[in-house]
Parts: sequence; structure tokens; C-alpha cells
Amino acid sequence: MSTKISVIKIGGNVLDNADNLERFLTDFSLVPGFKVLVHGGGTIASEIGKKMGMEPIMINGRRVTDANTLHLVTMVYGGLLNKNLVAQLQARKCNALGLTGADANVIPAHKRPVKDIDYGFVGDVESPDQVNVAFLASLAEQGIVPVFAALTHDGEGSLLNTNADTIASTLAVALSTRFEVNLIYCFEKKGVLLNVEDETSVIHHLQPNYYAELKDKGAIFAGMLPKLDNAFAALEQGVKAVVIGDAAEIQDIAAGGKAGTRITL
Amino acid sequence: MSTKISVIKIGGNVLDNADNLERFLTDFSLVPGFKVLVHGGGTIASEIGKKMGMEPIMINGRRVTDANTLHLVTMVYGGLLNKNLVAQLQARKCNALGLTGADANVIPAHKRPVKDIDYGFVGDVESPDQVNVAFLASLAEQGIVPVFAALTHDGEGSLLNTNADTIASTLAVALSTRFEVNLIYCFEKKGVLLNVEDETSVIHHLQPNYYAELKDKGAIFAGMLPKLDNAFAALEQGVKAVVIGDAAEIQDIAAGGKAGTRITL
Repeated sequence: MSTKISVIKIGGNVLDNADNLERFLTDFSLVPGFKVLVHGGGTIASEIGKKMGMEPIMINGRRVTDANTLHLVTMVYGGLLNKNLVAQLQARKCNALGLTGADANVIPAHKRPVKDIDYGFVGDVESPDQVNVAFLASLAEQGIVPVFAALTHDGEGSLLNTNADTIASTLAVALSTRFEVNLIYCFEKKGVLLNVEDETSVIHHLQPNYYAELKDKGAIFAGMLPKLDNAFAALEQGVKAVVIGDAAEIQDIAAGGKAGTRITL
Repeated sequence: MSTKISVIKIGGNVLDNADNLERFLTDFSLVPGFKVLVHGGGTIASEIGKKMGMEPIMINGRRVTDANTLHLVTMVYGGLLNKNLVAQLQARKCNALGLTGADANVIPAHKRPVKDIDYGFVGDVESPDQVNVAFLASLAEQGIVPVFAALTHDGEGSLLNTNADTIASTLAVALSTRFEVNLIYCFEKKGVLLNVEDETSVIHHLQPNYYAELKDKGAIFAGMLPKLDNAFAALEQGVKAVVIGDAAEIQDIAAGGKAGTRITL
């Protein structure tokens, strides 16, 4: 049986609140076995950008990354947030190592081609088989926990702002060639809800047939559909399970408990 | 015979000039064997701080690091400079990995005790035998080149602003337990000068007796004395040679050529 790995992605609702973050990092440090943390940080980047006289430019919910914005997110994601997460995990005896996709060429990417919209210095990752899995495996052997900021690079000297969900799923798929991977997306709800108005209506287990049935009925909140489609795509590429749930329940989720929505084939 | 390593420290005169930096990174990527890069970045941090309405606070030539300044240098050293150096080295097929002393707990430190002056969040590194040499050795085996920003941590969750020269010498001493280490300080002159006014008066080789003699005569520029005392201290702790020279001559220096001032016991 291959070694288990949890790839855990956290977003703004964890990073933007000091108490939530403290609690999450304590829980994360106690998750047994090899684990990988992936973080964004858009809200904090926007706040710091404002101090520097920059307004975020958004198109279709995505940040447009001009040269100044790339500098900003490199400072905030790669420096401020990433290195503080590392220091705070070290204080919890979790041997964290901060990374971007550029470091050890872990996640090669390319600048998104311009079609209707020029997103600027935004990265689309290359196929998961380009990920430097050998390096990540050597970290696992040493008990080192990688913490990824949402940045990649083009191999030609430029960093690229990259969607953190995509980084998490790319890493999860790549690691599936050697490990049994659980991909966990922490978000602001307890899981995927049957009824958006009812926090207790969490779907505990989602499989392809049931998902198709719910989609046909229009029973799933439209905003969740891309996340779920991506989850099933990751499963088809070898990830063992995807769980969408609340960061406050990360220990139960990582232990394979009842919390969150567990998605499997 | 043990494997050779070059630990190379660059300062403002390389980082602050795009042409110098491009040239240096190309030369650095061509230095054969295992190598470690250490960088500062004070001038750029001060410039970005000004955009955010912050004025640098200096006492006795050292930056006082209040909480906001710690955020600033974490963004600039750990993010902007470090990750761009990594991306630019990757473009030169040098498999760089950006690090602070917090990552993989490579360089433990403690906050400098307050005596006459409170330097704030400034780190004094623990003894070199606390450095995580096993991790650095595993990088060497994988052909990965660590790039260190001048930050350490206290093991209790706080990052610490730390002198880049000290980080370089601490790493050099620590690595000397397993490798044959050359410690190279790049600065704005071609080497230690016998006559500060004369750029051609480089001392090519400095050994303890000659150094004592020059010191007695008052023949060495006062500003160089702490750097040279530190160099001899590193040699006494196992470093093979310390070279002080011009970044533009890094290839000759790393190859053991005539450039720079070579300091040995």
C-alpha cells in the first residue's frame, strides 16, 4: 500500500482572520503523515496594494496581473504570507518549507495566452507530469512539509500569478503517481450543500451518478459546479478522494471522518 | 577528499542594478559544483517602504526592525527579491530554491537581547551546529542550489531580520563539517585594498601574520576590519578559504583564480 498524502488548500476565510488561522495551523500541524499546504491571499494583497496606491483590477472574478501587481503578489504571497505560515508552523514543531512553483522548478507553467482578455502575468500550469515529484518525495522522506504560495514561473525568468485551487489539484494529480492522495479544499461552508440556505444540508458523499442526478435537477449551487467538475477531473487522473469542507474541521476531514463533502469515483 | 561548496554573498551593488544582476546571475549559474547564494536587499526594501509611507530607522548603520519593518523585509527579501532571483536562475538552468532560515528550520536564531539599543525584530543566529546541514546536503545531492534571503526565525513563530554576511558565514561554518567550503563575499571593490584610493592595490592573499602586520601599521581601512575579523573567525571554525572580491569576477574567484582577496590560515 502506498503512503498517504493530504494536499490541503486554504483560502481567504482562514488567512484573513488571525484567530481562524492560529486554530487552523495548530490543527494542520497535528494531521498525521505527509501533507502539503497551498494558500492564496488575494484579500491581503489587495489591502497592501491599496497602501501602495494600487487598486486591484478584476475581470470575471480573476485578478488581472500587470507588472506592478505581479510584484505585489510576489511580495505578499511568496514573502509575507508564505514565510509567516512557515514560521508559525515551525513554532508548532511542523517542519514547514515555503515554496512557489519556481523553487526547484516544482510547477512549470506558461503565461496565459491572450484571447478576449489579457490577464497579464497569470500562469496556466503545464501538465501534472511536469511537476518535480522527485523533489517533493525527498521532502516527504525527510518529514518536511511544503507550503505553496499561489505562484509559478515560465522557465524564462518570469514568475506568474496562479490560481491556488489549480496548484492544489495539479500537485495532487502529480503526487498520485507515487502516493495515495487526498485533496482537501477548505472553504467557508461545512461542505457542498443540497440547499444553500441550510448549513446543515451537507452532502456527505458525492459520486459520479449522484452528481449527474443532482446536476440534472439543478440542485447544486452554480458557483460550486466548476469546483466539482475539477474535483472529478482530479479523481479521474488518479487522486483517491477530494474533500470540500470547513477548515475548522480539518482534523476530522484528514482522518477520513464524516466532516465535509467527500467526493470519490 | 570532500566535495567543494561555494557560499556566495551578494549585496546592494549587485541587486540594485539590473545589468549587474543579469551578468552576475549568468556567471553564478556557470560556477561548477554545489553552491549557495545569500542576498540582502536593504536599498530596495527602503524604496518600497517609502511607497508605503515608511522611513527606514537606522542606528549605528543597522536597520531597526519594528513590526511594520519586519513585514516589509519579509515581503521584499523573502518574496520579491528571493523569488525573482530563483525564477531568473531557473531561466539559466540553475535549479534554484529560495529559502529563509525559517524554512526547514535551516537557521535557528533568537531575537537580539535589548542592551543600549532595541533593534526590534533582529535575529542573532544560534551556533552553526544548529544549522540543518542534513537538509542542505540533500539539496546538494539533488543538484539544487539554495538561495537565502536575510531572514531567520526564533522557533516561536516570529521571523527575524538578520545580517546577510552573518547568514553566509554561519552557513559556511556549518557546511564545513561535511564539505570543503569557500566563502565568497562580493562587494563593490576588486578586493581588500592596501590603499583605499587605489583600486589596483588589491591584496591578493591575506594570512594571519600579514593581517596582524597590516593592522599594526594601520594600513587597512577601518570599515574592513570587522569583515576581516569575521573572515578569520570563519576560517578558524573550518571554512577552507574566504574571498572578498568583485561580483563581476565571480567565475575567476570561484575557480580559485587570482581575482579578489583570498584569506586563508
